[in-house]
Amino acid sequence: MEFFKAFGITLDMAVEAHELLRGEAGVEIPGVKVTKDRQANFAVTKVQILTNQGALQLQRPKGNYITIDAPILRTPNLPAHKDIMIKLAEELKNLLPATNEQPILIVGLGNWHATPDALGPKVVDYVLVTRHLFDLKQEAVTKGFRNVAAISPGVLGITGIETVEIVKGIVEKINPALVIAIDALAAASVERICSSIQLADTGISPGSGVGNRRPGLNQEVLGVPVIAIGCPTVVNAAIIAKNTLEMFLDKFTSSKQFYQFIKTYQEGLTSLVREVLEPFSSSLTVTPK
Amino acid sequence: MEFFKAFGITLDMAVEAHELLRGEAGVEIPGVKVTKDRQANFAVTKVQILTNQGALQLQRPKGNYITIDAPILRTPNLPAHKDIMIKLAEELKNLLPATNEQPILIVGLGNWHATPDALGPKVVDYVLVTRHLFDLKQEAVTKGFRNVAAISPGVLGITGIETVEIVKGIVEKINPALVIAIDALAAASVERICSSIQLADTGISPGSGVGNRRPGLNQEVLGVPVIAIGCPTVVNAAIIAKNTLEMFLDKFTSSKQFYQFIKTYQEGLTSLVREVLEPFSSSLTVTPK
Amino acid sequence: MEFFKAFGITLDMAVEAHELLRGEAGVEIPGVKVTKDRQANFAVTKVQILTNQGALQLQRPKGNYITIDAPILRTPNLPAHKDIMIKLAEELKNLLPATNEQPILIVGLGNWHATPDALGPKVVDYVLVTRHLFDLKQEAVTKGFRNVAAISPGVLGITGIETVEIVKGIVEKINPALVIAIDALAAASVERICSSIQLADTGISPGSGVGNRRPGLNQEVLGVPVIAIGCPTVVNAAIIAKNTLEMFLDKFTSSKQFYQFIKTYQEGLTSLVREVLEPFSSSLTVTPK
Amino acid sequence: MEFFKAFGITLDMAVEAHELLRGEAGVEIPGVKVTKDRQANFAVTKVQILTNQGALQLQRPKGNYITIDAPILRTPNLPAHKDIMIKLAEELKNLLPATNEQPILIVGLGNWHATPDALGPKVVDYVLVTRHLFDLKQEAVTKGFRNVAAISPGVLGITGIETVEIVKGIVEKINPALVIAIDALAAASVERICSSIQLADTGISPGSGVGNRRPGLNQEVLGVPVIAIGCPTVVNAAIIAKNTLEMFLDKFTSSKQFYQFIKTYQEGLTSLVREVLEPFSSSLTVTPK
Repeated sequence: MEFFKAFGITLDMAVEAHELLRGEAGVEIPGVKVTKDRQANFAVTKVQILTNQGALQLQRPKGNYITIDAPILRTPNLPAHKDIMIKLAEELKNLLPATNEQPILIVGLGNWHATPDALGPKVVDYVLVTRHLFDLKQEAVTKGFRNVAAISPGVLGITGIETVEIVKGIVEKINPALVIAIDALAAASVERICSSIQLADTGISPGSGVGNRRPGLNQEVLGVPVIAIGCPTVVNAAIIAKNTLEMFLDKFTSSKQFYQFIKTYQEGLTSLVREVLEPFSSSLTVTPK
Repeated sequence: MEFFKAFGITLDMAVEAHELLRGEAGVEIPGVKVTKDRQANFAVTKVQILTNQGALQLQRPKGNYITIDAPILRTPNLPAHKDIMIKLAEELKNLLPATNEQPILIVGLGNWHATPDALGPKVVDYVLVTRHLFDLKQEAVTKGFRNVAAISPGVLGITGIETVEIVKGIVEKINPALVIAIDALAAASVERICSSIQLADTGISPGSGVGNRRPGLNQEVLGVPVIAIGCPTVVNAAIIAKNTLEMFLDKFTSSKQFYQFIKTYQEGLTSLVREVLEPFSSSLTVTPK
Repeated sequence: MEFFKAFGITLDMAVEAHELLRGEAGVEIPGVKVTKDRQANFAVTKVQILTNQGALQLQRPKGNYITIDAPILRTPNLPAHKDIMIKLAEELKNLLPATNEQPILIVGLGNWHATPDALGPKVVDYVLVTRHLFDLKQEAVTKGFRNVAAISPGVLGITGIETVEIVKGIVEKINPALVIAIDALAAASVERICSSIQLADTGISPGSGVGNRRPGLNQEVLGVPVIAIGCPTVVNAAIIAKNTLEMFLDKFTSSKQFYQFIKTYQEGLTSLVREVLEPFSSSLTVTPK
Repeated sequence: MEFFKAFGITLDMAVEAHELLRGEAGVEIPGVKVTKDRQANFAVTKVQILTNQGALQLQRPKGNYITIDAPILRTPNLPAHKDIMIKLAEELKNLLPATNEQPILIVGLGNWHATPDALGPKVVDYVLVTRHLFDLKQEAVTKGFRNVAAISPGVLGITGIETVEIVKGIVEKINPALVIAIDALAAASVERICSSIQLADTGISPGSGVGNRRPGLNQEVLGVPVIAIGCPTVVNAAIIAKNTLEMFLDKFTSSKQFYQFIKTYQEGLTSLVREVLEPFSSSLTVTPK
């Protein structure tokens, strides 16, 4: 965890924070319960943080973090994608209120001008909003539809206003039962880019997300429950560098005559880096935010 | 005015409402003061509504409505455009607070997905926001710059939330000295499309604008002064039809029999126009290619 | 037809040109065969121009013009829309070659920056292109898929190049079996906006379309068959004015004096409409909000 | 160079290929002439490849490669940016034909849907095209303006057509004096992202560019001279990993008791990675293409 702190890297995915910590500690983490379910097209990992101690360890609030890992999302395969969609809908539905008296506010976080950060606004573009139709008591929508409003608040550099100020202002006006925040995430592993989905009933903690938005969007701040849905779209380049060195050390530090060893095996360098970046072969690029 | 009411057409420009009313009445309108200033590249008409009676007559709040008419905006002519820009800046500056302690919130009204209604969001895209830099007390911006935040709240059909709710929510959070609302307007004459600019210190009245946004954005609702800047981008098709018939009548009413004939059937005019435009009722607008 | 020529208005829809001409002539037009088929959710009118005389009369090339009129497209009704989609696919399939050895080039005509003219580029955005996968002989696509390429060539004002030059250049490189040109059309009636679809096996004639693109896209020019698919998105404002006056005259011409009066001044109609629309000459169009 | 080949990484910038090769060889490269000019706000490096041997060594065609390095482009500084703009215009002008009888075709390479690859299409959006006005012999533009056409041909995955096929098709139709191809580049160093500009009179070689477009755009293929203008927007993640390891080896391989050393200095790992990524601190992210 020291490394991530040093680089100001937030581990957006609870499942990764858990893996890292458990790997470092080599023991189960008290106050955290993890269950796994592997299906044909995806695997679901549920990380439950049950106690304050667990929350402190994983550096995120108590609550439920559900990760659907589905590398098949990166290949065109409609039936598999439908499977994953149904699973996501099922898990989401469990987190929604049973009744439909108050609207649900969907918030698309991120900057629509930057591809890796535009996930939230893109999703909002596809949302069917109905709140105004519910207000008109139009029967066509009130049966079988949820009462839904949606907003893409932009980012600080575009509006000059903290996202949380905009969202809180709107929440106070329309009084939703729930906020669903959609966000692009930073993963700790390239395998998760465009292949994992994280659902959390804890909202969004300060400092997380691709754009490093500081103020959190959670029940404490907004006064209503916040479900966060996120997909990793980037990996911090420092993690690439770190993984490379770790692999290097793993492989070669057992050799006593390290210096000699290195000289002989310099070509090993290439295959090392290749292993680190394998999931996308050489199609990964590094861009400034 | 009957005709406009029949078709639910709002006269977004005070100068047009004044012309129409004065034309119909044939006398000056009490409580309304109008001054004109013609320059080489533009003309400025200031309509001041001074009394409640004047407000009632022109169907808009007391206050100042400044219209810059500049058909030269439709042809490429950089020096002339600069002239107009300077005039607009000068008139706008007169309406701004002298001090810079509180931010100014710029609101781009309208739907970014529809060209004639996208003026507000387009303008916001070009605004240099600085409020977040002022908060950091960055000297580079605090000297010579205004403290500016900006938002494009979308429209009801996209968000499910009334624009005024979103803006009021944000105003309550960031407490601006002033709101500047940018909007596409509907004109009563094709000459004004892309050639006129209206500045008003009264905010935006309910029911005006291309998208017919009902709740107003004004000091009464938001609690802070609202300056509205608008440019006509459309003309309602009913007005095209009306103008045609009026010209027709103008030309042929010298015939005596005809004059008598017409007088009897004048009320037919509205129902005629309605028939032509029926399939979309009054929701058709005329835009330049 | 005189009126349309005077305003430089092209009747993009064969069915409208036919209605107009038959109405004016009061007799069947030789060399033109028209059949109608009315279904629950749509009506299909097929205009076949069989002879050169028919082509001269309707001012468009010999060939088949299929119009699907479906006002229900303007209301949310998924099952009805699916019905219409299936009909369109069926009619389109009849016009496609049976074999799949050469690619089909889809061309999205129009300006992506202007909503009413952006139909073609929008459609291209949704097209699944496969030609590059066929070139790689990827089995996954070669079974059950067509070999498809797609381009949005932009408009003269954006590229400085005539659309036909761009398309012809590409056709000569990739040698398609067929070009399908998608275009926004100008209708003669507001009822058809966003409710009709025209399919033609004659390509696009010079001077048609919302943006008035002069050089045609047809077999004569491109050397391969061209299917045109178009949807009306605008009506010329002059038509609104004309319809108003015509209805007016229809209603009031029972008066004898008036009838005589009007007969004398009928030529005044064109100049009247021209006066109303003068500031933008004929470049104004009517669009739904 | 072995490393880059192994990862299929193209060195898009001649100046970087030269630095790398000279570094590896430790001697001047025959047939390559390099001059440097350092100014207040930028440095210009001209790499001239004079012989076939030089071309073989640097793996790019004979010709002139001009790089303007200007890290100040990343900070808001209008006067400095203007300086750089003037220098770029000056260098570009030297490469243009003196007469203006034939048009210049500007080609914006890359995918407009992906931020780091959208540079070319963005630039084309800002280009003032005049070719159609020259064809009309409009005096307003023919004096003081160049005859310019512009196109953004998209990428293979969007059109199903190789970019070179589209461009060659258009070139054959409009017969330009010159093609200017604008492209996003991949750099070998994070310092160059959004801070360097490369101008080359050799066109674009096969396989270069962010999107790895295979067929080249050069005089051999198009039959007219091609100037390439590129700006680095990405760095391949493999380079990050490689740089990390190289630094590591540089620092620690002199130590005999390497194993012991490593155990003690494990915290050095963090500072190492920090050094590699310093130019953007931790704001670099890794994304799949």
